[in-house]
Amino acid sequence: SPVLVPCLLSLSPFLSFLIPVPIIVPCPCPLFPFLSRGVPKPFTEVIKANIGDAQAMGQKPITFLRQVTALCLYPELLANPSIPEDAKDRARRLLAACGGHSAGAYTASPGIELVRQDVARFLQRRDGVTAEPGDIFLSTGASDAIVVLGGVVTQGTHTRWTGTPQYPTGTRAATPNTLPGPVLGLYWYWEWDHDPQNPTRQVQSRQCIEDVIKFAYEEKLFLMADEVYQDNIYAEGSAFHSFKKVLFEMGPPYSEVVELASFHSISKGFMGECGFRGGYMEVVNMDPAVKQQLAKLVSVRLCPPVPGQIVLDTVVSPPQPGDPSYDLFMAEKQAVLSSLAHKARLTQEIFNRTPGIHCNPVQGAMYSFPRIELPPRALAAAKAQDQAPDMFFCMKLLEETGICVVPGSGFGQREGTFHFRMTILPPTEKLQVLLEKLSSFYTKFVKEYS
Amino acid sequence: SPVLVPCLLSLSPFLSFLIPVPIIVPCPCPLFPFLSRGVPKPFTEVIKANIGDAQAMGQKPITFLRQVTALCLYPELLANPSIPEDAKDRARRLLAACGGHSAGAYTASPGIELVRQDVARFLQRRDGVTAEPGDIFLSTGASDAIVVLGGVVTQGTHTRWTGTPQYPTGTRAATPNTLPGPVLGLYWYWEWDHDPQNPTRQVQSRQCIEDVIKFAYEEKLFLMADEVYQDNIYAEGSAFHSFKKVLFEMGPPYSEVVELASFHSISKGFMGECGFRGGYMEVVNMDPAVKQQLAKLVSVRLCPPVPGQIVLDTVVSPPQPGDPSYDLFMAEKQAVLSSLAHKARLTQEIFNRTPGIHCNPVQGAMYSFPRIELPPRALAAAKAQDQAPDMFFCMKLLEETGICVVPGSGFGQREGTFHFRMTILPPTEKLQVLLEKLSSFYTKFVKEYS
Repeated sequence: SPVLVPCLLSLSPFLSFLIPVPIIVPCPCPLFPFLSRGVPKPFTEVIKANIGDAQAMGQKPITFLRQVTALCLYPELLANPSIPEDAKDRARRLLAACGGHSAGAYTASPGIELVRQDVARFLQRRDGVTAEPGDIFLSTGASDAIVVLGGVVTQGTHTRWTGTPQYPTGTRAATPNTLPGPVLGLYWYWEWDHDPQNPTRQVQSRQCIEDVIKFAYEEKLFLMADEVYQDNIYAEGSAFHSFKKVLFEMGPPYSEVVELASFHSISKGFMGECGFRGGYMEVVNMDPAVKQQLAKLVSVRLCPPVPGQIVLDTVVSPPQPGDPSYDLFMAEKQAVLSSLAHKARLTQEIFNRTPGIHCNPVQGAMYSFPRIELPPRALAAAKAQDQAPDMFFCMKLLEETGICVVPGSGFGQREGTFHFRMTILPPTEKLQVLLEKLSSFYTKFVKEYS
Repeated sequence: SPVLVPCLLSLSPFLSFLIPVPIIVPCPCPLFPFLSRGVPKPFTEVIKANIGDAQAMGQKPITFLRQVTALCLYPELLANPSIPEDAKDRARRLLAACGGHSAGAYTASPGIELVRQDVARFLQRRDGVTAEPGDIFLSTGASDAIVVLGGVVTQGTHTRWTGTPQYPTGTRAATPNTLPGPVLGLYWYWEWDHDPQNPTRQVQSRQCIEDVIKFAYEEKLFLMADEVYQDNIYAEGSAFHSFKKVLFEMGPPYSEVVELASFHSISKGFMGECGFRGGYMEVVNMDPAVKQQLAKLVSVRLCPPVPGQIVLDTVVSPPQPGDPSYDLFMAEKQAVLSSLAHKARLTQEIFNRTPGIHCNPVQGAMYSFPRIELPPRALAAAKAQDQAPDMFFCMKLLEETGICVVPGSGFGQREGTFHFRMTILPPTEKLQVLLEKLSSFYTKFVKEYS
């Protein structure tokens, strides 16, 4: 059946092109490798506000996650009195589930059975719907799971639908190593003013999700839901609705028929553990024969990294009230999330103070996606250099300020509009300076090209 | 250009078949999921001698590797006086090379630059030939690198050559998600009595490698060399020759033209750190345009897991004489390797004592691949059950003894011969019991079917 990839695939010609051997889709490329060399710069540091890499921007890891992982990797630490007992209990429980009681053994290809059970319990609590460990495949981060599943459920001739703009992992998922079928972008979120979360940082409403599910049902589509930002909701009145929960609340025929895969990751949320490469996907209503092929395909690379599986376990099964690690865990988690919420508001405020920059509320995720007005002479100058106008702006910004953001044309955007994506991750003080620098640069740029 | 995958691809019809959506090649499947259920067994434990998973079989991790990794993941341990200073220095050096000084940040897609430099220095010492960090791509284990490269250099219409028998990672590398071209097995190693290392545990001679390189040159093939067992050489007179070293010793035109990729991993050798999923590939003489596509393709899954990159760094740049960790590191490394050498001899001795079992010297790697004579009535019984004769034998072995080995038909073997692959990894005492049990079972089996 064809594939619906909401919040994922893009129609942007900048993103999908064909090359003779495998089909490779460039990401919304970091621009800094293109920074001109050998000339003095008016800045001392490149600020990479282009990628959702929280710890690279100074976010501190959550202690409990790291303690459990370090204990599993170096069990001599079980004798260390400064590490709390619940972390040690967790490490013992996880090691007992590993081959030879070692994090150095292969696990089953879909992951450690115990961790899959813990994920299933987490999903059951979250959605109030039964979740089976057998439907859960641990992965090397969400992007890995999307690529693997994309290889199973898509074929060259399939039509793929997506919300636009979007983060191009999904574009890649549906295309690498398969013959290219058409990829159609859906601007409807955009028009209805509830957009996908990355890059547009808006939180999908329950109604929007229902509409996507109905569309998938009518068109017999396989639904892929990227839910890695489920903890990153900041705006009042916004809430995370999982596709699975909505699907089951809608009831038959939807809940019995619509094939769904959802993805989660340890790289975002309050964890920001990008380097560990951990995550999972849950499949719902998947054809058993396809599921068997999926199981075979995940076995090709043997198993997901064990340290990432360990971190994932601590995330889906965190310390509970009364546990020695509970207070610190909650304090650290809240500190990260409230700092992000503060920076989301700050971003929106400073941008909207600047004439010509329009920034919707950053309801969730880790990014702002402001629209920028560009004067006709800037469009002409971009055309002369054979660049998209927002790419031209972003390159100038980088050369003059060292601030690296991603042009909106990397994600797909409505014809004739221009955006850039910037993370809200830099530490508050740095972010404030950065936003003000960007705002002044924009004003100067507009003056220069008017 | 077509692809030569020595020591990798197999012609076995058991291994490659086509399914409508992606092309998936089953591995030499562990048989234990097929163990009959609900009937009492004449054994208390399934012994998984089917997979090279050292730590699952009780091998202890190397202390230095785990200390450095635990320090990087939980830097509070830098204050722990019981961890040696060189491990701490290493951890500090690696953390300084990570974004935000954290193992939780994404690294560059081909890996941490510092680790790539350390790998390049390791290769230069090993081969006496220049190695460039830019030619090194860190990976999520060797199988991951093989799959990714396979997607770049193969196309449906390419002919792929391989040594036979072989471990099927390569078969998978060349086939998933690409249209299937012919895969041709080369039995020449077999005939010349210098076989690829896994499963046939023989060490390729320098002459054999030269012949493969000449063949690749003449046929304009891309050469993929799986060198994950480079530390696992036990037999006197055997030595590891890297394809790169031999290629450069042969000089022009070979050294200037033949495109080569070689793979290494932290899962084998003396490390056995399978769970961390770490490794690298080095590409030599690769067409720059293809290399650029490879770089894009590895960026799809963002970066290899950082804990695996850390372990890899300790492996390519181990403690040196005079360092506080040196003595323990060398003692642990030698203990693992000499135990494996001892078990290699033990395996060969016990098998060759059994009439009808023929086991060549286990020169390297972690496996024996004995040939077994099977009586005509066993062949008929297997045929009646629509099984390969060695599959039939291995299933009976599993049901009666709990010993899980892999039938030779999973790797490809000369028509009319039968083998199985068994690891030499169980602890010595357990291995001895296991070998004797297997030998008695074989004798009984032959009697039963004669």
